[in-house]
Amino acid sequence: MSSVSMHDQIRTLINERRDDYISLLSEWVQEATLPGHEQHYQQRIAERYQALGLDTDLWEIDIDTLADNPYFHCQRDSLAGSPNVVGTWKGAGGGRSLILNGHVDVVPEGDHDQWQDHPFSGHVSDGCLFGRGVTDMKGGNLSALIAVETLMALGIRLKGDVIVQSVVEEEAGGAGTLAALERGYTADAALIPEPSEQKLFPRQQGSRWFRLTVSGVKAHGGTRYEGVSALEKSVPVIQAIQALEARRNAELDDPLYAGVPIPLPINLGRIAGGDWPSSVPDDITMEGRIGVGPGETVAAAEQSLRDAMAALAEVDDWFIDHPVDVTFYGACWQPGGIDMDNPLVTQLADAFERVHGRQPAVQASPWGTDGGLLSQYGIPALVFGPGITRLAHHPDEHIRLDDVFAVAEIMALTLMDWCELADT
Amino acid sequence: MSSVSMHDQIRTLINERRDDYISLLSEWVQEATLPGHEQHYQQRIAERYQALGLDTDLWEIDIDTLADNPYFHCQRDSLAGSPNVVGTWKGAGGGRSLILNGHVDVVPEGDHDQWQDHPFSGHVSDGCLFGRGVTDMKGGNLSALIAVETLMALGIRLKGDVIVQSVVEEEAGGAGTLAALERGYTADAALIPEPSEQKLFPRQQGSRWFRLTVSGVKAHGGTRYEGVSALEKSVPVIQAIQALEARRNAELDDPLYAGVPIPLPINLGRIAGGDWPSSVPDDITMEGRIGVGPGETVAAAEQSLRDAMAALAEVDDWFIDHPVDVTFYGACWQPGGIDMDNPLVTQLADAFERVHGRQPAVQASPWGTDGGLLSQYGIPALVFGPGITRLAHHPDEHIRLDDVFAVAEIMALTLMDWCELADT
Repeated sequence: MSSVSMHDQIRTLINERRDDYISLLSEWVQEATLPGHEQHYQQRIAERYQALGLDTDLWEIDIDTLADNPYFHCQRDSLAGSPNVVGTWKGAGGGRSLILNGHVDVVPEGDHDQWQDHPFSGHVSDGCLFGRGVTDMKGGNLSALIAVETLMALGIRLKGDVIVQSVVEEEAGGAGTLAALERGYTADAALIPEPSEQKLFPRQQGSRWFRLTVSGVKAHGGTRYEGVSALEKSVPVIQAIQALEARRNAELDDPLYAGVPIPLPINLGRIAGGDWPSSVPDDITMEGRIGVGPGETVAAAEQSLRDAMAALAEVDDWFIDHPVDVTFYGACWQPGGIDMDNPLVTQLADAFERVHGRQPAVQASPWGTDGGLLSQYGIPALVFGPGITRLAHHPDEHIRLDDVFAVAEIMALTLMDWCELADT
Repeated sequence: MSSVSMHDQIRTLINERRDDYISLLSEWVQEATLPGHEQHYQQRIAERYQALGLDTDLWEIDIDTLADNPYFHCQRDSLAGSPNVVGTWKGAGGGRSLILNGHVDVVPEGDHDQWQDHPFSGHVSDGCLFGRGVTDMKGGNLSALIAVETLMALGIRLKGDVIVQSVVEEEAGGAGTLAALERGYTADAALIPEPSEQKLFPRQQGSRWFRLTVSGVKAHGGTRYEGVSALEKSVPVIQAIQALEARRNAELDDPLYAGVPIPLPINLGRIAGGDWPSSVPDDITMEGRIGVGPGETVAAAEQSLRDAMAALAEVDDWFIDHPVDVTFYGACWQPGGIDMDNPLVTQLADAFERVHGRQPAVQASPWGTDGGLLSQYGIPALVFGPGITRLAHHPDEHIRLDDVFAVAEIMALTLMDWCELADT
């Protein structure tokens, strides 16, 4: 059987099963797998893996065993109700193994009034499937499942193992993938079908949340000169953040960031302070995220922010005795990626071209995924998936179904190249 | 009887009654006259006025009759539980009349843990009486009552009327004094014993609360260049406010403001915006107060702020299609004052010198009082009272009792000069 006709068979089979898969994706969306509510969904996934014949492993994550891990970031006290599932398609031996990693947790749906339909409707309209989490990233998860199921249904045998991971907690710092790593799951590389708009993301920035507290001295607004406004003192802080961002990005030298206006953004996302129009505010808090370069550590990025805040003492004497308080909290995504000459990159680009008839875009990712964590554990990770980034985390999140199936086809072809066909 | 011996008699009588008055002030503080809780207190005041023989008027304020008044600013739907009391000491005729205006509402006591004792204890320690509202302004109210009671007890008869006003709602915009004005209470001048630290304040700035809303465009923090940060756009807004303040104060030409670093402050007291560290904030709100010059209208001050925000379009094109939204809300204090050559100013300065043996400080007030409202109704108003400004509205608010009695003495002497002694 030639590989061309194999491609045809893959495409044909995916097409035949299209409606079933659309129904499945709709059901997945309806499961509303908000953090802590993934149990039923993951049991269904485990049953599907078992029915396929994968070695299936569903387990509850014990937070205590992860607590001392430097990569552990979790805002929950317990991960009860949020098991991981891993299904391993054992290879015949001798080939490269691949992790297909996807998370099942979704971000909150927000104000229902901003949605045209129920946020977890899973309804299909104009070739798109709607609902919270369908872009980020149940659509991509379906692509991965289809790739494996299709190859298995066609009787294909691979040399390398394929490890399909259905993990929790990606949106909150990656405790699910960390638990899978600590459970011993490893491979020669990982492919993560996050919504990259079918671009290849061989680099991904990490990110770290931070909180800045600017101090002042309270006073009555009518004699505000008797106080020190923490809001006025926040202006040089904001400017220092902008300057730090400019400096960090100027130092970046990676062609994959060409054309990206700000490869490693520092975003100030929230500000709050003061309690009365006619009082001088003595306490302003700003919260944000700093992008961590693919070639740097989270600790180094943190230090650059601390240094920039400490340097404010040279701009304004106020900061000598009242330094900006810098804390890092909440979410943390590790930076990571894969070498451009890794065969996974070239094979996936080749498969893309066979499916779409054109070369794929290759860029650095503007956001983090669990791929960073996998990279830190020595597993090169490539992000490539269906769905449009800006639709994630928004009302009326939806995905074009054609893209889900195209990615499935590309993944199936890539699996055959990467893991290699075993002799049948 | 010579006026020197009259002064001696006044001082002696005040001294004799000192302990009773301290007990009375303590009871007043314990009444905890937060807005809506002035009923019992005002009834006691009315009873005291009646016992003195003043024409006593206690009435509930009907908000509906004030609603169309351009000076009406009130955050409550009803003023039930907050009656006004006015006591008139009718003069023999032919002399100048004087309003002694004091408010009985107090600001919230805040966090009890920040107080050494209960906020409404009224306890005396080291010559000071402690409790929320004792500085702002029950101490001054007591000075006024003592002045009237002392003169009456000494059998003195004045030509002009003395109208003692115990009003509500000063802290929230002056609806109490407005109601008294609309009820027909007027006089040739007014004296307000707010905590001026025994300085004469012949000018007082007004103030107006405002809210600025700065718009942006939401985006993910990792692609923040796809959005517009309302926080970054708030920086030129803050700078424009600072520039407006500098401009407005540079234009001010009044020797009473000499030595005041910022005569008419614009204070940004509160900021809030954004909802997620890793999202670009599209909505920042700032709330503040703008000082209104004694020679300008509130409307003119409002317009200067609107103009400054509109002018941002020349600094940054963003503001052309996304102008800063400016609203005025909540409290409003009218500016006002009294001519320096008004006999009330010279007589009070003279009485001060007779009591303290030195000339009083004369300044413009850094804050507003109901004196502004009285001025708008054609009644020149002078602020002079016991108590230290910065202790008002703070934990452990307290007043030096000696100051309360000294001001009572000065007010008694001033009443005799202003209203003139009638033939007995």
